[in-house]
Amino acid sequence: MRIGFIGLGSMGQPMAENLLQAHYSLNVWNRSAAPAEALEKLGATVCESPAEAAQCDVLISMLADDAITRQVIVGHGALESLGDGAIWINMATVSVDFTHEMQTHAAANGVSYLAAPVLGRNDVAAAGKLNILTAGDKALIARVQPIFDILGQQTWYFGSEPTQAVTAKLAANFMLGSAIEAMAEASALVRAHGIPAADFLGMLTSTLFNAPAYKGYGELIAQQRYSPPGFKLRLGLKDIRLAQQAAEAKNVPMPFASVIRDNCVDALAHNEGDLEWAALAKVAARRSGLK
Amino acid sequence: MRIGFIGLGSMGQPMAENLLQAHYSLNVWNRSAAPAEALEKLGATVCESPAEAAQCDVLISMLADDAITRQVIVGHGALESLGDGAIWINMATVSVDFTHEMQTHAAANGVSYLAAPVLGRNDVAAAGKLNILTAGDKALIARVQPIFDILGQQTWYFGSEPTQAVTAKLAANFMLGSAIEAMAEASALVRAHGIPAADFLGMLTSTLFNAPAYKGYGELIAQQRYSPPGFKLRLGLKDIRLAQQAAEAKNVPMPFASVIRDNCVDALAHNEGDLEWAALAKVAARRSGLK
Amino acid sequence: MRIGFIGLGSMGQPMAENLLQAHYSLNVWNRSAAPAEALEKLGATVCESPAEAAQCDVLISMLADDAITRQVIVGHGALESLGDGAIWINMATVSVDFTHEMQTHAAANGVSYLAAPVLGRNDVAAAGKLNILTAGDKALIARVQPIFDILGQQTWYFGSEPTQAVTAKLAANFMLGSAIEAMAEASALVRAHGIPAADFLGMLTSTLFNAPAYKGYGELIAQQRYSPPGFKLRLGLKDIRLAQQAAEAKNVPMPFASVIRDNCVDALAHNEGDLEWAALAKVAARRSGLK
Amino acid sequence: MRIGFIGLGSMGQPMAENLLQAHYSLNVWNRSAAPAEALEKLGATVCESPAEAAQCDVLISMLADDAITRQVIVGHGALESLGDGAIWINMATVSVDFTHEMQTHAAANGVSYLAAPVLGRNDVAAAGKLNILTAGDKALIARVQPIFDILGQQTWYFGSEPTQAVTAKLAANFMLGSAIEAMAEASALVRAHGIPAADFLGMLTSTLFNAPAYKGYGELIAQQRYSPPGFKLRLGLKDIRLAQQAAEAKNVPMPFASVIRDNCVDALAHNEGDLEWAALAKVAARRSGLK
Repeated sequence: MRIGFIGLGSMGQPMAENLLQAHYSLNVWNRSAAPAEALEKLGATVCESPAEAAQCDVLISMLADDAITRQVIVGHGALESLGDGAIWINMATVSVDFTHEMQTHAAANGVSYLAAPVLGRNDVAAAGKLNILTAGDKALIARVQPIFDILGQQTWYFGSEPTQAVTAKLAANFMLGSAIEAMAEASALVRAHGIPAADFLGMLTSTLFNAPAYKGYGELIAQQRYSPPGFKLRLGLKDIRLAQQAAEAKNVPMPFASVIRDNCVDALAHNEGDLEWAALAKVAARRSGLK
Repeated sequence: MRIGFIGLGSMGQPMAENLLQAHYSLNVWNRSAAPAEALEKLGATVCESPAEAAQCDVLISMLADDAITRQVIVGHGALESLGDGAIWINMATVSVDFTHEMQTHAAANGVSYLAAPVLGRNDVAAAGKLNILTAGDKALIARVQPIFDILGQQTWYFGSEPTQAVTAKLAANFMLGSAIEAMAEASALVRAHGIPAADFLGMLTSTLFNAPAYKGYGELIAQQRYSPPGFKLRLGLKDIRLAQQAAEAKNVPMPFASVIRDNCVDALAHNEGDLEWAALAKVAARRSGLK
Repeated sequence: MRIGFIGLGSMGQPMAENLLQAHYSLNVWNRSAAPAEALEKLGATVCESPAEAAQCDVLISMLADDAITRQVIVGHGALESLGDGAIWINMATVSVDFTHEMQTHAAANGVSYLAAPVLGRNDVAAAGKLNILTAGDKALIARVQPIFDILGQQTWYFGSEPTQAVTAKLAANFMLGSAIEAMAEASALVRAHGIPAADFLGMLTSTLFNAPAYKGYGELIAQQRYSPPGFKLRLGLKDIRLAQQAAEAKNVPMPFASVIRDNCVDALAHNEGDLEWAALAKVAARRSGLK
Repeated sequence: MRIGFIGLGSMGQPMAENLLQAHYSLNVWNRSAAPAEALEKLGATVCESPAEAAQCDVLISMLADDAITRQVIVGHGALESLGDGAIWINMATVSVDFTHEMQTHAAANGVSYLAAPVLGRNDVAAAGKLNILTAGDKALIARVQPIFDILGQQTWYFGSEPTQAVTAKLAANFMLGSAIEAMAEASALVRAHGIPAADFLGMLTSTLFNAPAYKGYGELIAQQRYSPPGFKLRLGLKDIRLAQQAAEAKNVPMPFASVIRDNCVDALAHNEGDLEWAALAKVAARRSGLK
């Protein structure tokens, strides 16, 4: 089984590396050359175009957003190159509408489409410990399960429609945004009463909320450490917007999502879009007149 | 050291029992007789009035809300009965304003006031594993620390003003309400896309959100099991209102708190106030037209 | 018919003056002496206490809020002084709960209670052009209608319960707050796109929104003129809070009210509480990064 | 001067009729034949294609949304047909992004682009009393001013960029949505206190809010008359979404817009999307448990 891997960013690069170390044959392509060259030393075949990389049995893409994925995979002929019977696994976080669109394009080229977005940042990707949220044809998923087993610690199945994995991923990112916003508001409240945010968040994340989402973001908020960003606020806003679109498509009001969106926009208006998403705590503090 | 214990509800009763089993001398009083009688068998002195129970060195109160606490402790003469040099520890969740008021009343009677609200439900209280959030004079707290060590697994200190412990407790309950509302909205989103809430919440609470707050409420939402209530929705609303008041006193906008409040009010309009607080998921589902 | 008039602030003073000019016999009382003295020259009997002023057939009060009204009317013995068969008309904006409370106190003293809050600022009061929102016993209202006809241009009846007039008044102030917030957000939007707020608001208030509420506040926002205040932002916040309480008492979610409240709190955190309520436009502009 | 008119819906048809009656030469095109035939009797030249209709000096389009406008004007060759020096006036409510896009397409074909969305429904259009919001090159606007004078009672200028007229129009529709939502919430509040909505809204729209926006929608809400729709709720939602996009493009948080959107989505989930936009009052009533 030959794998094509397109998109070697901070997530894609360590994922591809893990596949190479598990002795898979890999075609790789990336817009900038450096990440591909590093993988070449581990045995990857560096390709000159997406179409060349797509001469494989299973194509994995891990690109930034809908527009770039459309351009690289459809625009540059990768889909046609993939050919009959191949599988395209899109592991990036994209929109529900785009998922429909790509599924249709894939089918028109005889290609099967799987959505498999992941939970976990680049250190988790490097450790092969991602949580993989997938949806689509079960037989297809069974065929690529060995790949998922290299990349992640667990695969979660959300239904027969690829859009369902996308929805679960967007819902999970909404949960993260909600956790951040709740900590942001609670921290402003306790700080305004003279309690260091670290004291409150330390207690919270040692007791009822001792989970990775809270421990990680809680520490950033306690220390007001928003740079360098692990996940940029403007990307958080993008995912909230995608969650709202997925919600609106099925008539689901999400007032928490609306609050997060408005506060992200406030952050952007104050040049905080390239800070860590946890900088929502700066918005809450600023609105409260806290320094 | 003689302890008076007033308020033997689902939390107070097991707390008093733990103190008796640690061989403290206890005066107890409760509006209804039954819980006091059970403690009498363990050695408690059952008193006829709050004032009689307050003939002690340390008075602990665990009453339902501001109004009842004011009536029982101030209205029935318990404070005067306590007398010079005694300590009153209020372990219930009350408002910031009320805390100021009681502190003043206590001081006027030569009594020192400590706020020490707790995290944990009645099973946690029974196990002596509460988390105790306290604030006030450190020397005083040191004197009652042995009592806290019986009642809880850990004592958290939030500052020299009793209101600070109250604020931390209200902020913690706001965090719980936010976790519930986030799960409610996310569950509506995934359900509307054909994904069982249990699948999504199961994944979530096994990974990024594997903390007691999420596991407990997540399971209730997944199973749509809102009765009998562990913590009633109307009491959740009450605490959110108290958090908003504490926030407004220091000019802290809390838009998430506003959303939770509005949705709790929606629940009350549909006779869901006596269900478990997690029934906010019913509101989100109803608004989305889900059954 | 002898009228007692208590509370000679910016609204009460011109109202009392209009009654004197219509040849009513007036007892007046005010905390500070100056406004009463001015009325004395027009024939008013200046009283030394609320109780003395209340030796009359109809008592009108126009005091700042619940607490002051309770203190002056109940605390200082005015109610007892009023005596059997008298009518107390409260024309201030107070809460629904307080209205219940005063109604009970009045009844216990053989006094009939009417709520009659007004729409209009002090220039409207001076012109005798207030809109009077009333509720209560119709026969009682008929008896005081001649008074209302001096003070206002029209009397609006909202039901047999005094709380209903209060509710209508709070709902009207909520409408004003909503108009301000909508103009605040729309102005931020157009300004961010390079359109002067005055151009947009000028068009709006000449066409679909050519009503006093929009023309008045719209001009203040267009000119960013928030001082001196006609109606202080912190009083606007107070009325929104009262509207929320009236709503919560009947299980009505009001998400617009929640937004207004949060934004007023934001304003208070930036020392804007004593500006005109229209300064909500400063909050919207600040959040958008506009100067 | 020959005018092409494309899009003869409930707004376009009476606008085209007014131009014919002012003796302009008109090419007309519409997807369905009937409205064009009616105009033929008044002297219009009915065209077989958008491209044929666009053989003119000034092209006016009044189509449903971005997608249909793009398809009809760009997709069917109307722009190429217009040719050098011609003017395209888009009088429909479209998005800011789309306006940029069409401006670029127009310029590439030597065509000048003007945005001129209108305020007013079809009866206002028939009376030639629209308010026309325009933006773009002033000299161009001067050339088409005689056309605007036939169609509308007043032309409002918002700047040199066509997007500015679009922004002003979206801001105006946001103002309408806010007025509706405020009346919806206030009506729920007063109804819950036993006051007929008609009593409250009648008072309001006779006094502080006696403007067309409030009188029109207020009467619909008072009478709970949401069908047949004058302006469908789902179109209101579409415009709020466009306003949010215009806001987000310039980093303007609009929490009122977020509330309106969430409540429109709630309405859609209850099959109320094809009712009048004022049916937001049904959402507020339902959430409050009112019948």
